[in-house]
Amino acid sequence: MQTNNKGLSDLAVFTELQKQAASPYDLTVSGALRPERVSSCICRASGLDVLYGTQRVDDAVLENLQKIADESNAVDQFLRMKKGEVINRIEGHDSENRMVLHTAMRDVFADQPYNLEATSKAREELDKLASFLDDLENGRIRNAKNETVTGLINIGIGGSDLGPRAVYLALEAYRLPERKVYFISNVDPDDAAEVLSKVDLSRTIVNVVSKSGTTLETLTNEEFVKVAYVKAGLDPARHFVAVTGKGSPMDNPEKYLRAFYMFDYVGGRYSVTSMVGAVMLGFALGLEAFMEFLKGANSMDIAAEHRQIKNNPALLLAVLGIWNRNFLGNHTLAILPYSQALVRFTAHLQQCDMESNGKSCARNGVRVSHDTGPIIWGEPGTNGQHAFYQLIHQGTTVVPVEFVGFRENQRQQDILINGTYSQEKLLANLLAQSMALATGKNSDNPNREFQGNRPNTIILGDKLDSFCMGALLALYEAKIVFQGFIWNINSFDQEGVQLGKVLANRLLDHFSGLRQDQDYNGEEDDPLGWAMMKAAGVLPGK
Amino acid sequence: MQTNNKGLSDLAVFTELQKQAASPYDLTVSGALRPERVSSCICRASGLDVLYGTQRVDDAVLENLQKIADESNAVDQFLRMKKGEVINRIEGHDSENRMVLHTAMRDVFADQPYNLEATSKAREELDKLASFLDDLENGRIRNAKNETVTGLINIGIGGSDLGPRAVYLALEAYRLPERKVYFISNVDPDDAAEVLSKVDLSRTIVNVVSKSGTTLETLTNEEFVKVAYVKAGLDPARHFVAVTGKGSPMDNPEKYLRAFYMFDYVGGRYSVTSMVGAVMLGFALGLEAFMEFLKGANSMDIAAEHRQIKNNPALLLAVLGIWNRNFLGNHTLAILPYSQALVRFTAHLQQCDMESNGKSCARNGVRVSHDTGPIIWGEPGTNGQHAFYQLIHQGTTVVPVEFVGFRENQRQQDILINGTYSQEKLLANLLAQSMALATGKNSDNPNREFQGNRPNTIILGDKLDSFCMGALLALYEAKIVFQGFIWNINSFDQEGVQLGKVLANRLLDHFSGLRQDQDYNGEEDDPLGWAMMKAAGVLPGK
Repeated sequence: MQTNNKGLSDLAVFTELQKQAASPYDLTVSGALRPERVSSCICRASGLDVLYGTQRVDDAVLENLQKIADESNAVDQFLRMKKGEVINRIEGHDSENRMVLHTAMRDVFADQPYNLEATSKAREELDKLASFLDDLENGRIRNAKNETVTGLINIGIGGSDLGPRAVYLALEAYRLPERKVYFISNVDPDDAAEVLSKVDLSRTIVNVVSKSGTTLETLTNEEFVKVAYVKAGLDPARHFVAVTGKGSPMDNPEKYLRAFYMFDYVGGRYSVTSMVGAVMLGFALGLEAFMEFLKGANSMDIAAEHRQIKNNPALLLAVLGIWNRNFLGNHTLAILPYSQALVRFTAHLQQCDMESNGKSCARNGVRVSHDTGPIIWGEPGTNGQHAFYQLIHQGTTVVPVEFVGFRENQRQQDILINGTYSQEKLLANLLAQSMALATGKNSDNPNREFQGNRPNTIILGDKLDSFCMGALLALYEAKIVFQGFIWNINSFDQEGVQLGKVLANRLLDHFSGLRQDQDYNGEEDDPLGWAMMKAAGVLPGK
Repeated sequence: MQTNNKGLSDLAVFTELQKQAASPYDLTVSGALRPERVSSCICRASGLDVLYGTQRVDDAVLENLQKIADESNAVDQFLRMKKGEVINRIEGHDSENRMVLHTAMRDVFADQPYNLEATSKAREELDKLASFLDDLENGRIRNAKNETVTGLINIGIGGSDLGPRAVYLALEAYRLPERKVYFISNVDPDDAAEVLSKVDLSRTIVNVVSKSGTTLETLTNEEFVKVAYVKAGLDPARHFVAVTGKGSPMDNPEKYLRAFYMFDYVGGRYSVTSMVGAVMLGFALGLEAFMEFLKGANSMDIAAEHRQIKNNPALLLAVLGIWNRNFLGNHTLAILPYSQALVRFTAHLQQCDMESNGKSCARNGVRVSHDTGPIIWGEPGTNGQHAFYQLIHQGTTVVPVEFVGFRENQRQQDILINGTYSQEKLLANLLAQSMALATGKNSDNPNREFQGNRPNTIILGDKLDSFCMGALLALYEAKIVFQGFIWNINSFDQEGVQLGKVLANRLLDHFSGLRQDQDYNGEEDDPLGWAMMKAAGVLPGK
């Protein structure tokens, strides 16, 4: 199969946008950010409103951003992805050659899913999960003392940790009251030790998540926790559950209470809606809430098929991001949720976006001639306002921002102080920051001058519930995928993590070599690695 | 007082460094990163080793970086700061006009402190704290049911939250077993509600931290928690403690069990070693551990007086950062701790650095003609390796990195798997990443090509204990201050946070106006703010 995808800089509209970028829309001029602009620049889908009047775009630029989407066939590529085309590949070179079907995980509500086989398999796993959750709820799974399960330790790293953890924290307000979840991810032994110091192992199940069943950190932490179980006189096989690829070393009923399957066409960073997120979230929130979460994601997957950027929030965010990155020359994107529940959502997006689009090789095997994915970072507001917003307002580097907020809070507890509720204070700050960044402010005091023209977007929902969280997650997944299509890169592999692994294994050979033989010397075979270990003072007796 | 500080671009050595930056040291050439380089490029102080062989510098560049430090009188300015010169100011314009004396908070071990008055006052507060902690320990402070205190809720935001919280998490492994700390910062009401859902208020004290005693978020959350106390039939005055400025509205013995003072010459983001961190950390770790923490910080403050960058880690990090920012043109700095305990340390540094140096106005009131503070971001390794490292290795934007690691773990629990301990796996990964980023790797497969030349530094200590944490904190504080001196900006104000506050208050007036009068209309007075609220759908009935 010959792909003839064009990269951004090959599109006809590219040079025209470059010209427009020389004098982008100036938001600081009086009347530039007028009420009509604010109320007309809104794109809505799946319960989320995207307000983009505070971006540096006018109608002419928006027309050309639409052309970017059109000329790159972004929506067609998205549809082909959903149907199961092998798009995880690099033309003419050894690569993963896989389909990309995370959307099939939530296409389970359709009579005619885009990819019947993948969705059928997803349904099978959901049925297995329903039965497992039912067994837990009705006490058919109990510990040796005949007690029910109240805790779950999730062991995973990267995609098997960040996304599931972010969604758990986002929805923790709704968790089943008797159930609690803990997370272990880092190979740092203090991570596991800290969790073990506060968990009642006897009433806890351990959810081990690794597609290959060979992830160094995850296997190490699994063993770490297993040893604690054995020490406590408990049988791990009665407590451990596996989420893994079919046929992996972890797909073993003798060692695990249950095994749930993940598939090679769902990448780790896109796997929250697969069993990777499902087992833990189903345990914590109940199956019904998890299905609502899938419905929200599915709803946005459908909205992402719209060809007009004004009606497709994911596509709109994608092209606005490209405008800021490739034409206005910004290197980063801050994602700032005004919701404490989204405390780890930016960390998830940091992975999902940067691992997908932090690439230099185009899908045709040639080095890209334009910038690709930006650096994603951020913390919740209003906290961030008391931290790094100084730089965003007055620093020498412009930081585009995506704000996320909700009209209502989750826990129905609020307090009226000085005439307003806390939720209103939160929203007032969100909207005020958006305006302040856009318009800036003149001053006679040069230190109180705000240059403005800091582009930003607001994403607003009614309330962060399961459906809304699903929609928000899928919004960003689709945005990232669209940007990858437009940049003509493969957003679904991660070759950039390999070199570090290879070098780390060589250093581990030195550690284990020294353990076996105190005269071991790695200098000859690996002079640099050996020197690094010596300089770092980590070689015992060297 | 007329300052005649020069900015970076006015220094004689500036253009020479620009020339050198056209062809920086190439780490990818065979033999460039040789064992001798690795072992000789180490700068040591206060138990921390800084390995910088993987930066893109040769001897000629290092000589000129030394000249940057010399020509800008960075160390002299640091000494003048310690003595109490009024350096928090903008010449010829209205500004804070304050001394900057966070170092005096830990100069308490010296017979002749740099600033006797500030250090005397710091000692007084430490004495008050000692007595308070003694009262808690010996049960002279008890609740109405005559029980001792086991919990502390810390209410603060920005500097009164990030630094103290980061250090608490860093040292939580050593906390007194019967004591636990909770944090509330965000004005999002779900933040406080979540904490209140899991705390036994009756055995808990509440530490409210606000210098002015008027911080919106902190007062709101204090009230939120106070209402919960009253509802539970508990008397807040028996549970609430204040850390605030002398004479502030919170300096009120009728409302607080105790009041500890903070001073206008210790900025929020530099306040961890003042009472802002001391009360909570002293409660959690005991006074002795807190004094060790101060000792570590003090030790690094002294090391930071050294004039040679090769012997002064803070000054070295400062000039290497300037090389990467101003000469090699990088916009961000990733700080990546290989220690789960440092999970929030980068967030603290994000504030400390970006709020200090995210400025455009020079100390003489003129706009700077060079870039200032970079965007600081990062997450702990090895987690990050499974997240955003793809971009760091293969993205189109170079990200300088500072790694932080420790030879030993904290909790003395580790496991031998495949011949190595988890701590060794952690260290092997840290060192491997440093090498991989620097040297890169060629490949016939363009998607497996690593360009290398990603500059990075490793900061290594033996073990993350109280002393080490103090040294690490002070290392970064001094680095940030040195960079501010060299950029000729005022690192100690934060005018950039004001505009957002003003605009938020105007929107809050609309919320409260509507609450008082349903016919209220803010359109005429504030057309843009009113339109934003309407577009966001947060105006009830509009």
